[in-house]
Amino acid sequence: MILTVTLNTALDITYRIRSLRPHTTHRVSEVTERPGGKGVNVARVLAALGHEVTVTGFTGGATGRVVREKLASVPGVVDALVPVAGATRRTIAVVDDRTGDTTQLNEPGPTVTSAEWSAFQEAYAGLLPSASAVALCGSLPPGVPVGAYAGLIRTARSSGIPVLLDTSGEPLRRGVAARPDIIKPNADELAELTGSHDPLRATQDARRRGAGAVVASLGPDGLLAVTRFGRWHATPPAPVRGNPAGAGDSAVAGLLSGLIEQLPWPDRLARATALAAATVAAPVAGEFDPSHYQELLGRVAVTGEASAA
Amino acid sequence: MILTVTLNTALDITYRIRSLRPHTTHRVSEVTERPGGKGVNVARVLAALGHEVTVTGFTGGATGRVVREKLASVPGVVDALVPVAGATRRTIAVVDDRTGDTTQLNEPGPTVTSAEWSAFQEAYAGLLPSASAVALCGSLPPGVPVGAYAGLIRTARSSGIPVLLDTSGEPLRRGVAARPDIIKPNADELAELTGSHDPLRATQDARRRGAGAVVASLGPDGLLAVTRFGRWHATPPAPVRGNPAGAGDSAVAGLLSGLIEQLPWPDRLARATALAAATVAAPVAGEFDPSHYQELLGRVAVTGEASAA
Repeated sequence: MILTVTLNTALDITYRIRSLRPHTTHRVSEVTERPGGKGVNVARVLAALGHEVTVTGFTGGATGRVVREKLASVPGVVDALVPVAGATRRTIAVVDDRTGDTTQLNEPGPTVTSAEWSAFQEAYAGLLPSASAVALCGSLPPGVPVGAYAGLIRTARSSGIPVLLDTSGEPLRRGVAARPDIIKPNADELAELTGSHDPLRATQDARRRGAGAVVASLGPDGLLAVTRFGRWHATPPAPVRGNPAGAGDSAVAGLLSGLIEQLPWPDRLARATALAAATVAAPVAGEFDPSHYQELLGRVAVTGEASAA
Repeated sequence: MILTVTLNTALDITYRIRSLRPHTTHRVSEVTERPGGKGVNVARVLAALGHEVTVTGFTGGATGRVVREKLASVPGVVDALVPVAGATRRTIAVVDDRTGDTTQLNEPGPTVTSAEWSAFQEAYAGLLPSASAVALCGSLPPGVPVGAYAGLIRTARSSGIPVLLDTSGEPLRRGVAARPDIIKPNADELAELTGSHDPLRATQDARRRGAGAVVASLGPDGLLAVTRFGRWHATPPAPVRGNPAGAGDSAVAGLLSGLIEQLPWPDRLARATALAAATVAAPVAGEFDPSHYQELLGRVAVTGEASAA
């Protein structure tokens, strides 16, 4: 199975309202809820692609119970979340009905104790022997040490299991130094890591810092990958209108599934790009239509070159 | 005991953020949760005044479980809520850190089936024999007939139990026709009911429509009461700065407790006005400081006259 780690899981709530006006009262016309956090989103897409996935990370409180109940109804996803005393955070996306513009409110998440962090590390070590790959995704909740991902990467690598890291800020900086197989920063995260706003230069620099492969997500411009096998740029067939929420997580699922299936890099990138574009186009945030994905897959352009052997 | 009815209970969530800017992402720095809905707020204040209170209404889903858990820790309040299949609504108050300005997002509440509504009416009839007074508070959730309060008022009156109604719109209009002992509209609700924006005229008109006594809450201008014993105007000692959320519910608790204790109307109005002002001044929405309440109570001015006997 593929193991995805979401230390800061979430209950993602979407509110539809007429139009957000600060300091007034709004009636919410529609409420939707789904389990979230980047690794949970990645797991859902991997399961939809036919892979066996296990999700781990932390969950707690009343919102944690709802996350687990809802996860139980996602076929192909196994729940190996570790309980904490604090409550799983909510994220609230407030969508204006007319324009589709979204205002986001994100709770910080529970404070994790050192005993809970130790319990997680044990659970993680216990799951690794069954894992063919690991994805470490998203922000760290309060109380988890900033070098958490670096430690989890070393544990996986010492067992010979490939690791993808998708985070930002200091956890990314520390994580990269632990030599993950793949990182997938977006343009802002890459610039913060390297100090360079030139995507190619920054991607190359991130690789020199320790990542085996760097796949930069450039929004509508697709994916730019620098690996030891070469460098490529994958672009979607046309600008896609829609909601970019979850597109990066779909790209991660594409990269991981391509890794497991031992696809050549250009095919992995085409898959990741088509999944991201199909996610943007889907009416529900984070979902994708399989037939639209297949249709886009045939039309992604991948340019670049393999390295001299 | 005093029975308070909250058909649309809520989990009231408060988020502190730096400043709300539509269509951007916000990190919530502080999350607080408490059981809410007007009748629940009234019950909490009555319990703080030393009265035995039972709360009924509907509760369901994960948010309903949280409401019940939190209610269990309020001393003096007995939970007689009736389960529904839908989820209790959330209300979210987003408070800007610097200015204290609040943006409110209110979920609509669960849709109540006719079987659930029948179950509630049975539970209500079962609670009435132990009740010395009833407060019917707040909006109706989807599925509950618009004449709901009118029916509940008739049931209570046929058992000789005094009823206070605090709602708005069509449920208020229909409820008033069923002759509740007291209604407590605010200025907007009163204008909507009567078509008049003149507080005294509107209050008198509302009484002619069927209410035994009308107590209009005029915000910083206090309470205006027209009853068969006379008419009075109670004003707080000085303008109170703070959060008006819950002040109306504290006033209802003051009126109900004064009714049970058979206080003269001017004393009931002084108590309700002091409780409302103390609630506005309290740092936590809906709470009040008992010593501040006592201090304000001695300084409320009540003017007016008793009717000729």
